[in-house]
Amino acid sequence: MASNLGVVELTIALHRVFDSPKDAIVWDVGHQCYVHKLLTGRYNQFDTLRQQGGLSGFTKIKESPHDFFDSGHSSTSISAALGLLTGRDLQNIDGKVIAVIGDGALTGGMALEALSHAGQLAKNLIVVLNDNQMSISENTGSISKYLSRLTMTPQYQTFRYKVDRFVERIPFIGKPLTHIIFRLKRGIKGIFFKNNLFVDLGFEYVGPLNGHSRSELEKVFNRVKKLSRPVVVHVVSQKGRGYSPAENDPTKFHGIGPFCTSDGAVEKFDTKSFTESFADIMVKAGAENPKVAAITAAMVKGTGLTAFSHRFPERYFDVGIAEQHAVTFAGGLARAGMRPVVAIYSTFMQRAVDQVIHDIALQNMPVIMALDRGGAVPDDGETHQGIYDISLFRPIPNLVLLAPASAAELELSFDWALKQQKPVVIRYPKSSCPTEQDSFALPFVEGCGVMVKSSENAKLLFVCTGGIFPEVNEASNFLTRQEIPNDIYDLRFLKPLNKEFFLNVVADYDAVVFVEDGVRIGGIGSYLQSLVHIQFPAIRSTVCGFPDEFLAQGKRLQILERSGLAPMQLAETAKKLLNS
Amino acid sequence: MASNLGVVELTIALHRVFDSPKDAIVWDVGHQCYVHKLLTGRYNQFDTLRQQGGLSGFTKIKESPHDFFDSGHSSTSISAALGLLTGRDLQNIDGKVIAVIGDGALTGGMALEALSHAGQLAKNLIVVLNDNQMSISENTGSISKYLSRLTMTPQYQTFRYKVDRFVERIPFIGKPLTHIIFRLKRGIKGIFFKNNLFVDLGFEYVGPLNGHSRSELEKVFNRVKKLSRPVVVHVVSQKGRGYSPAENDPTKFHGIGPFCTSDGAVEKFDTKSFTESFADIMVKAGAENPKVAAITAAMVKGTGLTAFSHRFPERYFDVGIAEQHAVTFAGGLARAGMRPVVAIYSTFMQRAVDQVIHDIALQNMPVIMALDRGGAVPDDGETHQGIYDISLFRPIPNLVLLAPASAAELELSFDWALKQQKPVVIRYPKSSCPTEQDSFALPFVEGCGVMVKSSENAKLLFVCTGGIFPEVNEASNFLTRQEIPNDIYDLRFLKPLNKEFFLNVVADYDAVVFVEDGVRIGGIGSYLQSLVHIQFPAIRSTVCGFPDEFLAQGKRLQILERSGLAPMQLAETAKKLLNS
Repeated sequence: MASNLGVVELTIALHRVFDSPKDAIVWDVGHQCYVHKLLTGRYNQFDTLRQQGGLSGFTKIKESPHDFFDSGHSSTSISAALGLLTGRDLQNIDGKVIAVIGDGALTGGMALEALSHAGQLAKNLIVVLNDNQMSISENTGSISKYLSRLTMTPQYQTFRYKVDRFVERIPFIGKPLTHIIFRLKRGIKGIFFKNNLFVDLGFEYVGPLNGHSRSELEKVFNRVKKLSRPVVVHVVSQKGRGYSPAENDPTKFHGIGPFCTSDGAVEKFDTKSFTESFADIMVKAGAENPKVAAITAAMVKGTGLTAFSHRFPERYFDVGIAEQHAVTFAGGLARAGMRPVVAIYSTFMQRAVDQVIHDIALQNMPVIMALDRGGAVPDDGETHQGIYDISLFRPIPNLVLLAPASAAELELSFDWALKQQKPVVIRYPKSSCPTEQDSFALPFVEGCGVMVKSSENAKLLFVCTGGIFPEVNEASNFLTRQEIPNDIYDLRFLKPLNKEFFLNVVADYDAVVFVEDGVRIGGIGSYLQSLVHIQFPAIRSTVCGFPDEFLAQGKRLQILERSGLAPMQLAETAKKLLNS
Repeated sequence: MASNLGVVELTIALHRVFDSPKDAIVWDVGHQCYVHKLLTGRYNQFDTLRQQGGLSGFTKIKESPHDFFDSGHSSTSISAALGLLTGRDLQNIDGKVIAVIGDGALTGGMALEALSHAGQLAKNLIVVLNDNQMSISENTGSISKYLSRLTMTPQYQTFRYKVDRFVERIPFIGKPLTHIIFRLKRGIKGIFFKNNLFVDLGFEYVGPLNGHSRSELEKVFNRVKKLSRPVVVHVVSQKGRGYSPAENDPTKFHGIGPFCTSDGAVEKFDTKSFTESFADIMVKAGAENPKVAAITAAMVKGTGLTAFSHRFPERYFDVGIAEQHAVTFAGGLARAGMRPVVAIYSTFMQRAVDQVIHDIALQNMPVIMALDRGGAVPDDGETHQGIYDISLFRPIPNLVLLAPASAAELELSFDWALKQQKPVVIRYPKSSCPTEQDSFALPFVEGCGVMVKSSENAKLLFVCTGGIFPEVNEASNFLTRQEIPNDIYDLRFLKPLNKEFFLNVVADYDAVVFVEDGVRIGGIGSYLQSLVHIQFPAIRSTVCGFPDEFLAQGKRLQILERSGLAPMQLAETAKKLLNS
């Protein structure tokens, strides 16, 4: 929302000057692509935005020839655009390629890798740096500071305009000379105003420009169009432009659900969410233990670290959109004897798999990794589902993997993890916490879960990861009402797993339904099913989890339904298994 | 080897000026830590280097209190050092922290993320940039070019010395003033010699210094020790210094096995290696198809792309140590209609898991990912084993996963992959190719493997991934000689898998031994075992693969032996299973 209001004039200028799709506009992250979508034939479908079967909140190749890459994760646009441009050049295909990237996304290492490569290839890539001086939480890192400094040079601004006007007045100056003028300007800038980072990396640099002046933007785009070298166009814009609730609190309106347009009030979960529980846990842990530190990658609100950041600013680190650095930085803190907690969404932790292996697990660093938004994630679609974490992290030695089912269990997970001298991953969903059950409060025993429901004569057992407990519970209650007694076992530990304990739990059932809110391939269900098969060949079992396909956007229940994980589907599966 | 000869004086200077381990020296990658190891009590064990049970070729916490982090992968040192320093500061623990990073490692995005964060935190981190003007292959990217330009400023050099001498002559100048002098120098530099990238990011910058002048280095280190802000000390050194074969061909001596010291001749595989086969395949594919492009991340020799890079320089891209960008850049090339092949070691592809998911698989981009050094990797140890790729990539939708067993099968894999309109991962080991078998040359059928050995009356079947075929074959031959008839099925496809075809293959055996050169957790063996269990409960089976622990260094056979994957162990396991 806020991002899109900030790029209205920019998007219009880009589409007026460039000829999409012959010229390719590649949007980074993509959450600022709404204006682009409205301008490229999707106005009439716009009320389906972020709904199942509707328009995506990000760019999607399948949606339009004007969308060049699927987006969602940060900092990919320069790499993708450079590849596209290089591939077109090799085949003599015409057309400009423009990457539009925010100042936040520029803190991501891969964007910097791409800048370095683009500077070397010296192709005529156009990088539009949309600098709204705020990434998802707030600007962090010296790159951000540096950008602010760049925009703070009014002398330069004045000077630049004078040069521009002077150049325009020279008679007979042809288009081919524009290139030379840019070089000249760079030279002058180099002498009077120092080189800047982009120039150091081999780019031409134009800016800072007023991102809300369409005419200024169009003038500049018409010029950079003719360059034969890579150029950074530095545009300064205001998030939430024109809508005062968003102008005043752009973080809140960064990625937002439905809200009341008159006052900006947002729909909320009915009960406390896992994120809010985590927020409280972190403040408590921070107060009790001066060694607890919190690290996030530009997601302070989303991960629930705001309160901690206010209470313990010296132990709070927002490293920018830099998951790789976040994880290894936490490893360094741990090596110094601190107890770092890295809070990153499950889907974004995919960016730091090697760091988790190489810098945390291998060295057995006592780092807690809190993965919010594990499992089905509403509205955002394919790119944001938190369904790979279990499969990605289970094969890594030394790692403990916890999947709490409630606020109380999340707190116990955290307390237990703090007592360990090894790395612990705690993953939980983007949803409200379910009603507490007595068993959730039972003390933690390594490798062991808890029976949440234990009925007499039950021949059916549900074994589940925490994030999917509410649906399993509903299925279970439904079956109970149908007089099919059944039990629920909450795994708590996805790794390590006390096999003996687990086999004891399942020994007396006829049928076991494994339910996990992660992909089935490489998941915990198929592993446990094998154990059961080998030990008790007579027990029938089945594994319910996400299928081997990317999961498009929808509400939580819609996503679960498409995967056979909705309560009634689980009940049906269980009944069939029991009667098979 | 070459890296270490380049840092002799630097390492001595660091250890003379700083008080390790109170002061922490954090080595990036770690392949340049031999001198450090010799100086910190490991001289007598040095003949065990890179051998099983011996000293690691990288830094290792367990080896010495002077080794602060386990290293192996590139670009982690600044993150780890910054974390260590920040954690110490929070606990008022004294001591300087020094990160030593090469110019190659600086092209890695996470190093740049860390620089940005360090510039913001403004802690007194010392980053020694060891600029040997060559990363593993050759310097790439504009960051590297930029460093070269920095070192080309003799006027600045002269000027700097004049200022230094002037400052030294000022009477009564105390230690606290050093700080001011640095600021002064930065100011002067800023006016006369432009800012540089490090200064832009908030660092002090000292350099370029002669990396082979111990006295110059010591003088500077003694000064920067007193700074309260982050500083980059830019040291220019020569790889292979003092040993002419290495000075002349530093790439060859970057990471090297045993060699003859008089002439530098290196031990080689007896027969053609998979890397060499891949090299030939790429040249052939490049000649036949002008759309084939090759991308590597600073590993042109190691991945076998040298010949391709000479024949087709315009379609060859070395992006520097930037695996994330490499993968997404390939996605961009594919989007433009090219057929990009990304060649990266299995262990380094861990850096780009999210890019494979988000920028390749989700968009179904026809990119071939050639993962060399899959499976057990000799000598390098924990950090370089290629044993996670199968588990990491199997859960990703749309990806095809191939594991060829021979040179012929590698070529067929590649030809098949080029015909697909989807992404394909081909993984193969660091070893010589085994003798061809007729079945390896059979045409590819999606999802199906081939029977390599088919005996009459065989009740025992080995099912294997390609990389471990030689050991399986040896085990099989041993059993045949013992008159235990047995067959071998080479999977070829680890994903997708034609279940029906596979179940048909195994249907008539009594016992099936799954052997894979990847970790058992999340591997292909446990998945296939489940299939067999469910379909044919009477078939006995077992899964052989790498255990859930980090695998220390050793020769290939030693690593396999520790994991129960050596030929005689496999034969024993099979015999037991058959007789159980």
